[in-house]
Amino acid sequence: MEAVNAEIITIGDEILYGQIVDTNSAWMGTELTKVGIRVKQITSISDSALAITTALDDARKRADVILITGGLGPTKDDLTKNVLTAYFRTELQLDQQSLDDVTAIFSRRSIAVSELNRQQAFLPAACTPVRNVLGTAPGMWFEEDGKIFVSMPGVPFEMQRMMTDTVLPKLKVYFKTPEIIHKVVQTIAIPESTLAERLEAWEVSLPPHIKLAYLPHLNGVRLRLTGQGTDANILNEELEQQVTALVKLIPDNIFAFGEIKLEEAIGLLLKEKQLTIATAESCTGGLLAHKFTSVPGSSAYFTGSVVAYHNDVKVQELHVKPETLQLHGAVSEETVKQMAENVRLKFKTDIGVATSGIAGPDGGTPEKPVGTIWIAYADKDKTIARLLNYNKNRLLNIEYTALAVLNLIRQSLAPTVEE
Amino acid sequence: MEAVNAEIITIGDEILYGQIVDTNSAWMGTELTKVGIRVKQITSISDSALAITTALDDARKRADVILITGGLGPTKDDLTKNVLTAYFRTELQLDQQSLDDVTAIFSRRSIAVSELNRQQAFLPAACTPVRNVLGTAPGMWFEEDGKIFVSMPGVPFEMQRMMTDTVLPKLKVYFKTPEIIHKVVQTIAIPESTLAERLEAWEVSLPPHIKLAYLPHLNGVRLRLTGQGTDANILNEELEQQVTALVKLIPDNIFAFGEIKLEEAIGLLLKEKQLTIATAESCTGGLLAHKFTSVPGSSAYFTGSVVAYHNDVKVQELHVKPETLQLHGAVSEETVKQMAENVRLKFKTDIGVATSGIAGPDGGTPEKPVGTIWIAYADKDKTIARLLNYNKNRLLNIEYTALAVLNLIRQSLAPTVEE
Repeated sequence: MEAVNAEIITIGDEILYGQIVDTNSAWMGTELTKVGIRVKQITSISDSALAITTALDDARKRADVILITGGLGPTKDDLTKNVLTAYFRTELQLDQQSLDDVTAIFSRRSIAVSELNRQQAFLPAACTPVRNVLGTAPGMWFEEDGKIFVSMPGVPFEMQRMMTDTVLPKLKVYFKTPEIIHKVVQTIAIPESTLAERLEAWEVSLPPHIKLAYLPHLNGVRLRLTGQGTDANILNEELEQQVTALVKLIPDNIFAFGEIKLEEAIGLLLKEKQLTIATAESCTGGLLAHKFTSVPGSSAYFTGSVVAYHNDVKVQELHVKPETLQLHGAVSEETVKQMAENVRLKFKTDIGVATSGIAGPDGGTPEKPVGTIWIAYADKDKTIARLLNYNKNRLLNIEYTALAVLNLIRQSLAPTVEE
Repeated sequence: MEAVNAEIITIGDEILYGQIVDTNSAWMGTELTKVGIRVKQITSISDSALAITTALDDARKRADVILITGGLGPTKDDLTKNVLTAYFRTELQLDQQSLDDVTAIFSRRSIAVSELNRQQAFLPAACTPVRNVLGTAPGMWFEEDGKIFVSMPGVPFEMQRMMTDTVLPKLKVYFKTPEIIHKVVQTIAIPESTLAERLEAWEVSLPPHIKLAYLPHLNGVRLRLTGQGTDANILNEELEQQVTALVKLIPDNIFAFGEIKLEEAIGLLLKEKQLTIATAESCTGGLLAHKFTSVPGSSAYFTGSVVAYHNDVKVQELHVKPETLQLHGAVSEETVKQMAENVRLKFKTDIGVATSGIAGPDGGTPEKPVGTIWIAYADKDKTIARLLNYNKNRLLNIEYTALAVLNLIRQSLAPTVEE
């Protein structure tokens, strides 16, 4: 089977000048790889007709699919649509569906459609429009000489929705891509090098049509097994067997199978056990509550949070004893345990968790440097506290702390699973 | 003055397959722009001799400076050095300084230099080595036909140190670069198309050496003015005058000058006015508190938050009247006003803000569909509530609501500025 090659072209001076980081290409690279399309090149160019035309000419020599993002805004520095119209020797015409979509977006905001936005519904006659239900710039799908060209907006959530709903399914059909199945095993609290050592013998024994990828993330390393074949059922069974073998090698470090986030996995665990939870947050400042509530349906188990940034709030709302704060400080095992226990009682939940630490960049002392963080878990039977030591980056300290609490919940609930 | 054009080439399959996001190019783009070098293209390719050679041939047609990152590791899939040696028709020879640097790094770790790492000190005879004091792969500076080619490792902190210490200073001298100055004006609550209409006449009147760019973000459109000239003082004054003219056209929609986030701008405003704030969050679920506390030094004005996800918490902790919930529901002007007023009293702050809405994807009704969200602001003089209508994406609804509250704070505090 011939490999299908893709090239990604991103248009916009903001990428070249470093004003924004191009995260679209990585997202597209991931999704294209999943359906068996190989990205050969990513090209970022400026909003210039010559640069766009040259990039298209070069890309079609290397690739079967050319995916273009950016330059579709309503202002005059956005040239992509006009350049594509000329490139494919066609002309603009009104696309009624696109106009309806734009009108719908503006009527939700109770604003009349401006002339500039109305012009966005005029598309090259030679293209098949790609609907954009989240923004005002429709996408365009062109076919020429067996090559596919797709132009999409640079706004990430609009592009992602269009790729998922329309572009990827159409590409799979057009190129009759092989069966590709992925299995994702998400690990936590194990460094990549340790993981690689534990998995080495098994990895070497994998058959050639099954590949393993290590994908490090903030919350751990995702392991992705990719199988390629002709029979989906057989392939799926083979992959399941490999996953079973993998699980036996690292039984304590897997928090989920599939592309779900740690907070979703914890949410499923709480739902399954019919437990409720509340958070008392100092250094995480609401991020933990935000992670819980970012999951649809979290109101079934997440009750609420007290963000106790000021020490008065720790005393008044979470009933931390003033003498504890005086004797041990806000960043201490004693304080964080009281916070977890008391938020549980206050919100009448099964579980309470708490954080207190020095996120930085200021506030460190020789005994408690920046990155010194206490976390705690409390339920009706026990209270567990843990000391974390991170580095100097405030936002990472906050993020890592929230993830450590989620992992502490997972570990605290785990023993019951084996009963 | 002739513009100096640059091209960035990043080498490595991990970027093409989306396993890592290419942040190096954005960093380099920012730094090159600052010294007046214009990035014309960023090209990401795989570790293949043909791909590298083709990219170099294409890049030298467009650019005066070609900056290459990646593919300098010690393993056999790293080809860059050998490809460059062939490309410049030269041969490898030992560079003693590089060997000393590698040896120093290993002796700090108390490890002997491996043969693979020793080989990294062999460099093409035609290059000027670029020292890497943080890693084992030295950089290489080539000059040919008035073009500069620089190869650096892909490890971000190594590349950044080499750029800052060696490459950027050498480029400034080599190309005698012009002065370039940027001014950023951050707008909010005005769509890009409306903005473009309001600014059109002024934008058209800009002198040719000053350019305007629209950079849309979740929280609004950043406007960036870029001027190029020979005298930094004169140029800066010209740009300041243009910014003054711009401000007059959209006086109510500017929240900051320069590269800062909305929550930082609000933090500065609260600090300046010596005001404290607390949040009562239902649908934002802690995100608002997280935004406030992500800013260093926010403990000076942010006191805490009650995340009242369950209605019992709204009654018990925020003293929302049960009859209000029964009569108007949790998502109502009455409820959200009580939440804002009562969290302010509870935490003894100057300002209280609140959110209550249906983030989705479930929980909508015909009268209150998903995306129906109430927000409120309360201080000693007034309580202001506002109804928001968003679409169906849960995470975006949460994000936009938090930004809308920050903007409501800005607007509520604004009149006092003009007193």
